[in-house]
Amino acid sequence: MAYYIKQDLNDTICALATAGGVGAIGVIRVSGKQAIQIVDAVFKGKRLTQQASHTVHFGKIADGPKVIDEVLATLFVEPKSYTGENTVELSCHGSPYIQQQMLQLLVNKGCRLAKPGEFTLRAFLNKKLDLSQAEAVADLIASNSEESHRTAMMQMRGGFSYQIAEMRERLINFASLIELELDFAEEDVEFAQRDELIQLVTTIQALIAELLQSFKYGNAIKNGIPTVIAGKPNAGKSTLLNTLVNEERALVSDIAGTTRDTIEEAFVIDGITFRLIDTAGIRTGAGDKIEEMGIERTFEKIQQASVILYVFDASITTADELQEELTQFNNLNVVLIPVANKTDLQQQPSSFAVPNLVSLSAKEKTGINQLKLRLSEAIRKDEVKNDIIITNLRHYEALQHAHESLDQVLVGVNAHITGELLAFDIRKALFHLGEITGEVTTDDLLANIFSKFCIGK
Amino acid sequence: MAYYIKQDLNDTICALATAGGVGAIGVIRVSGKQAIQIVDAVFKGKRLTQQASHTVHFGKIADGPKVIDEVLATLFVEPKSYTGENTVELSCHGSPYIQQQMLQLLVNKGCRLAKPGEFTLRAFLNKKLDLSQAEAVADLIASNSEESHRTAMMQMRGGFSYQIAEMRERLINFASLIELELDFAEEDVEFAQRDELIQLVTTIQALIAELLQSFKYGNAIKNGIPTVIAGKPNAGKSTLLNTLVNEERALVSDIAGTTRDTIEEAFVIDGITFRLIDTAGIRTGAGDKIEEMGIERTFEKIQQASVILYVFDASITTADELQEELTQFNNLNVVLIPVANKTDLQQQPSSFAVPNLVSLSAKEKTGINQLKLRLSEAIRKDEVKNDIIITNLRHYEALQHAHESLDQVLVGVNAHITGELLAFDIRKALFHLGEITGEVTTDDLLANIFSKFCIGK
Repeated sequence: MAYYIKQDLNDTICALATAGGVGAIGVIRVSGKQAIQIVDAVFKGKRLTQQASHTVHFGKIADGPKVIDEVLATLFVEPKSYTGENTVELSCHGSPYIQQQMLQLLVNKGCRLAKPGEFTLRAFLNKKLDLSQAEAVADLIASNSEESHRTAMMQMRGGFSYQIAEMRERLINFASLIELELDFAEEDVEFAQRDELIQLVTTIQALIAELLQSFKYGNAIKNGIPTVIAGKPNAGKSTLLNTLVNEERALVSDIAGTTRDTIEEAFVIDGITFRLIDTAGIRTGAGDKIEEMGIERTFEKIQQASVILYVFDASITTADELQEELTQFNNLNVVLIPVANKTDLQQQPSSFAVPNLVSLSAKEKTGINQLKLRLSEAIRKDEVKNDIIITNLRHYEALQHAHESLDQVLVGVNAHITGELLAFDIRKALFHLGEITGEVTTDDLLANIFSKFCIGK
Repeated sequence: MAYYIKQDLNDTICALATAGGVGAIGVIRVSGKQAIQIVDAVFKGKRLTQQASHTVHFGKIADGPKVIDEVLATLFVEPKSYTGENTVELSCHGSPYIQQQMLQLLVNKGCRLAKPGEFTLRAFLNKKLDLSQAEAVADLIASNSEESHRTAMMQMRGGFSYQIAEMRERLINFASLIELELDFAEEDVEFAQRDELIQLVTTIQALIAELLQSFKYGNAIKNGIPTVIAGKPNAGKSTLLNTLVNEERALVSDIAGTTRDTIEEAFVIDGITFRLIDTAGIRTGAGDKIEEMGIERTFEKIQQASVILYVFDASITTADELQEELTQFNNLNVVLIPVANKTDLQQQPSSFAVPNLVSLSAKEKTGINQLKLRLSEAIRKDEVKNDIIITNLRHYEALQHAHESLDQVLVGVNAHITGELLAFDIRKALFHLGEITGEVTTDDLLANIFSKFCIGK
């Protein structure tokens, strides 16, 4: 594993911590045993090595006689820093050129450029945060809606870790008791009551099931809820997209088959991001080859959707026709919202007796709020009891494995297998729970997680 | 003037100070009388109002029960800050969503979003830096090469201001002496020796002339040196561009007239940015209308160039033909560098007796270093004696006006005009010099300067 090797951790690392490009200021972070000494060697101002932690000092960064910038240097003396190591943050002017020059100077003076996520890796290795908290840091940075922010924040602050730790502790106690029995194997005692074990495992499995259940929602709020706008040509799908996102995003015309490529736009209701996907209208005998390819794409998108807005022209569609059209979605595991569009063109009020129906005019922008409400409800209904929400596929898989191992424990207990085998199965469940918080890790796992971070974090 | 009104300065302002987009961290800057109190009201941690200047504190920013982020808050108590006001810098996670939430919260609690450059404007108004230094801050942020960085840094650190201030002081002394004469007008005394005035004005004018002279170079290093690659079709101009910038930037083919649009690429030699401009080959009777438009564009670009690389095919061009072709540049005020290309195809070494000639093969990448050296020399030759270099058009114009006013002073002295009129002309020169450093300003001028800054600076 080339990515993380032990001696790397003795290096002092540096990186630009703020976003790239021109800004008023930029921050360069330096962390490691030698951080303060190395910066001090190029800092003209107070002697940084003699200053207290958590203080800020104005000075110049200079390469010999050449001043690179006037900066503010903020000191964090180990272990009171993000990484747990000596850290200096240099706040300089927001010129990429200057930042490049400073990083080069720091490297010349003995720093190494940080790998992606290396500051947070060090924080993890120095037990400043556990693995799921470290992962939440990346989620927090990527958060772009109220819900994704809330779940990442909760995870970073340890809400999830706490639940996992509690489950593990109870299981560890049990495993220890069972292992104790092994020492007294000849006396045939049972320190660990089997019925208590069954109860504990069942309780923990129920909790895991809840967390697993939350993943669908968690994944949706992290990545946005794929919401396909489908319907016949000229039903007003693109107009609806434009109205919802409040701009002329999709080309609109009276000509059936205007939309060919699928068009995606994000759109937030009540803190939840919906990824609206406008599609080519569904019809047989399409105008041309390109439109046919578009329709094929529509069916692909429908397969991947969590929500389908089925838009139809209420002024020309009969109740029977609608019933018939909706059957094509019968076997899909989606929330289906039929949208009766063009109510402004209707001669008389319609009576479509289908569930979840919303009537609106995308063109006149009437009834839009009702649709938003319906979308919001559709997702909230799925919401989970537990306040903790899984958003990370890795956690989801580890929980699944833990659940399976616990199944094995139950099977074992009922089959009266030996304590040795039982303890083995419990240890397996513990292993998978430990994977989440990082009690159990491999270099590969760490490399895989942290290499996806941005540099400077 | 809507942009800067007096009472604005009593507001506490906030803005994202780091570049937009996702990064590891972002910094929000809050400045003004109430900065520390306002942040303290949403900060969960130590009471910021009770902490010393230049200290850093970990805590949470919360909107009631809702935690927006974990942050580091750095305190600067007035007047020891960039703006001279109370300032708090909040280092938060680099998520645009979080930054938006925090700014919104701060605004709800009584801050106002900062206008572009408003932090630096306040620094200027609080006499933390003079106007030319403030302008250098923006130049420094925009600097992208060693030379533009060096001149901006020198200006920000006051090298230029110092020269201006010195000139002003000497002129002010003289003006005062002359004005003193006016009080003793009946006695017909001369406190201010006219020959000394002539000497002083002449010295100052020489210095101003030097600074004015430096502007051509200063402007070039700030904006890059416009360097046009011209020549006949198929001389290898685009290949030369690609070789110089080391990528396949321009489309290259054997077909004469491949390049139609002019293509620009920046390229740094010895810390100086050259803006390479590849142009359509020059020929009469071009292939089509678009190519003709391209050739027209070529001549426009040649007019604006500082350097022309005239590329020709050395394997088919005779010395006489070259002489003839170069005559078209005779009346231009440019550095002309004839480039004998395709030396790899030459049967025998050529002898083109023209100055500045460089022989190379753009395709084989031989002779390129010689061309770079020639480019670098061509610019260095223009370089100025004075270490201070003018890069700002506003300063250039103010210096021109000061120079003109001083001309008037000389004319006046020689014509033995009254002390009153003489003092008036000197005051005019002082006014223009004062414009540079901001001793003399108008709201319009300030608005004009600072509105071009980025927000957060």
